[in-house]
Amino acid sequence: MSTSKAAAPSSASMEAPDPLDTRENQLLAIARALFARHGYDRTSLRDIAEEAKITKAALYYYFPNKDALFERVVLESMQSLYDETSKAVARAGTPTDRIRAFMEASAHVQDHGRDRWIAGSNAFWQGAKEGQRLAALKLRDSYENLLRQCIADGVAAGELRPMDPAMAGRLLLSALNHMPRWHKPDGKLSAAQVMQQFLDILMHGLIKETPASPPATRPPARARKSATA
Amino acid sequence: MSTSKAAAPSSASMEAPDPLDTRENQLLAIARALFARHGYDRTSLRDIAEEAKITKAALYYYFPNKDALFERVVLESMQSLYDETSKAVARAGTPTDRIRAFMEASAHVQDHGRDRWIAGSNAFWQGAKEGQRLAALKLRDSYENLLRQCIADGVAAGELRPMDPAMAGRLLLSALNHMPRWHKPDGKLSAAQVMQQFLDILMHGLIKETPASPPATRPPARARKSATA
Repeated sequence: MSTSKAAAPSSASMEAPDPLDTRENQLLAIARALFARHGYDRTSLRDIAEEAKITKAALYYYFPNKDALFERVVLESMQSLYDETSKAVARAGTPTDRIRAFMEASAHVQDHGRDRWIAGSNAFWQGAKEGQRLAALKLRDSYENLLRQCIADGVAAGELRPMDPAMAGRLLLSALNHMPRWHKPDGKLSAAQVMQQFLDILMHGLIKETPASPPATRPPARARKSATA
Repeated sequence: MSTSKAAAPSSASMEAPDPLDTRENQLLAIARALFARHGYDRTSLRDIAEEAKITKAALYYYFPNKDALFERVVLESMQSLYDETSKAVARAGTPTDRIRAFMEASAHVQDHGRDRWIAGSNAFWQGAKEGQRLAALKLRDSYENLLRQCIADGVAAGELRPMDPAMAGRLLLSALNHMPRWHKPDGKLSAAQVMQQFLDILMHGLIKETPASPPATRPPARARKSATA
């Protein structure tokens, strides 16, 4: 586990990961691929051992049970998603920039760990035990609240229209979370590039606003009235 | 089962569906509920028979195999979604109104057949055979193209900003298709009401456009440039 376990005293630990860690990471990659392809609850430790061509006993050395894998596959990747988006938000300026930064960083994480993303999502929704689910929910809430806060700040600053930050956050995250359903990783556009097109629409809207028109001549807000329930 | 069982011979057929149909519809409802809860590929004909408290042989009378159920659960509900949205679009006026009508009708269908929606989606993605999948894809394409056409018309008419109708359609449908993941049917807002809030944001954007500003002073389109790949 520790990166220095088998390292030579001088610089080996800088040059290559510990062989044990590499093995563990290989097994994690196999687990993620199987979870992504077949679902979390339909993948057994035996499936992972078979795919890795090792005995179940050898796999147990790294992951004594599926709970240990949930910890690594779901919780660690949610934590890293939160860390990446937090860093991106902290570097951005205005609330609008922070929303963009949050969404672009999230799409970037999806681009660079598609199996991890899908496996994490599958495991989150399927067969997580109560305690694990609570830990995952806590992380998910931190992540979502970070976005909602950016939106609320934008509304408060007058940069954004008045809106429910929770609802707007759900809309933005639907665009992101639904992407693995249709986006082809070997297609023309990366998830991050798709997200930029989505953000252009989400930021400025479908309708072409005419600068000359006073706000009163906008299309009637017939939907808006009944939606503020 | 049938409300007309004890009715007078004259008008019984006008008042209630054929008892056979009713039985069939009950079995379909059970199948949909199980597909929605456990997934299409993890629900067997035996599970449905057990839940309906009938023998497998009796179930075979209605559905000789799972293919027959796929036909009823997925293809019929996709056809009816297409029919409902087509009617709504035909009644609406401008392209913008037609986009709203399409999305609101879709959310309405989700509100009034949540199990059907989730079961259809599960079955579409899981374990459909090649021929069935092709039939489902054809229906899905008709449905999506209807929306894309409204968007393309809106762009051509100058009502909407210049944008890729396929990409904008994906964004709108992500908002709709991701809803069953988080929206509680017994919550404060129906799916149709949520959709109205989403549409307000999608139509006008997050950013508060200031009518006094000429278009040139809008936030720099740094993302737009790299996204038109």
